[in-house]
Amino acid sequence: MNSIFSYFIPKDKKFFPLFEKASSNLMDMADKLEALVNSDPSSDREKLHKEIERLEQKGDEITHAIYLELSKTFITPFDREDIHQLAAALDDIADYIHGSSNRMLLYNVHLMTEPVKKLGELVKEGCKEVYKAVSELKDLKNIRVITDSCVRINSIENQADYVFDKAVGELFDYEEDAKNIIKYKEVLSALETATDMCEDVANVMESILVKNA
Amino acid sequence: MNSIFSYFIPKDKKFFPLFEKASSNLMDMADKLEALVNSDPSSDREKLHKEIERLEQKGDEITHAIYLELSKTFITPFDREDIHQLAAALDDIADYIHGSSNRMLLYNVHLMTEPVKKLGELVKEGCKEVYKAVSELKDLKNIRVITDSCVRINSIENQADYVFDKAVGELFDYEEDAKNIIKYKEVLSALETATDMCEDVANVMESILVKNA
Amino acid sequence: MNSIFSYFIPKDKKFFPLFEKASSNLMDMADKLEALVNSDPSSDREKLHKEIERLEQKGDEITHAIYLELSKTFITPFDREDIHQLAAALDDIADYIHGSSNRMLLYNVHLMTEPVKKLGELVKEGCKEVYKAVSELKDLKNIRVITDSCVRINSIENQADYVFDKAVGELFDYEEDAKNIIKYKEVLSALETATDMCEDVANVMESILVKNA
Repeated sequence: MNSIFSYFIPKDKKFFPLFEKASSNLMDMADKLEALVNSDPSSDREKLHKEIERLEQKGDEITHAIYLELSKTFITPFDREDIHQLAAALDDIADYIHGSSNRMLLYNVHLMTEPVKKLGELVKEGCKEVYKAVSELKDLKNIRVITDSCVRINSIENQADYVFDKAVGELFDYEEDAKNIIKYKEVLSALETATDMCEDVANVMESILVKNA
Repeated sequence: MNSIFSYFIPKDKKFFPLFEKASSNLMDMADKLEALVNSDPSSDREKLHKEIERLEQKGDEITHAIYLELSKTFITPFDREDIHQLAAALDDIADYIHGSSNRMLLYNVHLMTEPVKKLGELVKEGCKEVYKAVSELKDLKNIRVITDSCVRINSIENQADYVFDKAVGELFDYEEDAKNIIKYKEVLSALETATDMCEDVANVMESILVKNA
Repeated sequence: MNSIFSYFIPKDKKFFPLFEKASSNLMDMADKLEALVNSDPSSDREKLHKEIERLEQKGDEITHAIYLELSKTFITPFDREDIHQLAAALDDIADYIHGSSNRMLLYNVHLMTEPVKKLGELVKEGCKEVYKAVSELKDLKNIRVITDSCVRINSIENQADYVFDKAVGELFDYEEDAKNIIKYKEVLSALETATDMCEDVANVMESILVKNA
């Protein structure tokens, strides 16, 4: 380690493990989401919905643990506000993955269309990049890894925007039932928003780099 | 008063009274909203809509008074940005209460369904907790009161999410008219977003505590 | 120049030209948008859509140039976070202008209704005020110009809210086809959100003034 940061943030044993836990939990959620959008209607989707719900609650607990730590800790590795914002942004991703799963369940969306699958995949890629970048925050040795992930997250969000817009256009063209249009639009929108939330995490990380690098 | 804060923020006579006024105004708005969602179609709803509109404008004036004070005051009890953000977040709650009322009026939503009533009630509870917490900001003697309210606001927002999701699911199941689905979804969404905005206020307050406690 | 700021930020040649470029690019986008909403279906709308898309990409490049500059520059004219936020907020306006154009194209919205035209006009006015205010940031000599523009941007956003709400109410009253209701609601919503994003820029500028004035 030859970075000047090794002197400033040498021994944080509290926040970084919790951030890694939060983003590793997101990876688990994204795995379940991927399984869900690729499952066929006859499979045990109920189980996947429940697992996503359970992981969302686990994420809530990690978020609260970070907040609690923040209230007890005097010297923090980054600005207190940035720690707060990063925890909140990671929590937002979990909320929208859970929200996507929830809408599929509540709106009886049985047919997983191509755009639903594609967005589920993009959410997973986004969470993978979030995990990679968050894991590097602890020593800031490889700033490049973080900035590269941020660039990829932005590109993933752009792709998700495009898939969403195109899918909604096609719903208008080919789906006659207005109810179905609304249902699918809501599910697609929740999935797309999950990638927006990945971008929010990237923005917080970029802001941390801007201040600390 | 035995808190160290009594030394730092001993005599602010400007911002805290305005914040209390803004959150007390939100309580008034939430009262009118509650009356509205519990009114029957034959009652004078027009009057309630107008009162909510008037209170929203009153809220705008309080918000601008805070901004004006901020531009004139050199030493502020909290970070200038936090004062700005808190004022903006309180204003957002007012906007969405007004927006809910406005949509009911413009979309001719006459039948107040159970989820509409329940969300109106949750908005009121949220505003009550916001008021309680904001009132304690002035001396930070009872940080516990603030953090307890923030926890309750988060729980209220979670309940509102659940009521919203379930209500929309039921619209798809039982409402045949797509127009009605869209109308109710929009009204429910504005109400639910009002509780999201309460959560934003809680986040700003938590962030103030994190920096000042 | 008799402001104290002339001493603090005398020679920034990097950020202000980029911010001016970004907001001048928004003016160009708003011009194309205005041409689009006032065009008739027989005209070459395809070309306007493509020009808006090209300008949005140009805006992305300016945004990234600001971020890059930020990572290389030690002393910045404002807080690093504010530069980051201002760049992001300007980029958001571009995204929603592009999003409006994109939805018109993808959803085959051929008939430009009065509210669509009116919102297009309000977006243009908003971008004009953003440009004016951003141009004054460089020396803060005319703070009044900035605050006046921020007030006007707030008023534009309020008008856009009103036009949007009324237009959606009228869709419910006069449009029988639920598909069309959804399509127009989405287009109107993207336009209205573009004015929300102008308000976000105003909020960031107000926050910069609060800290620096």
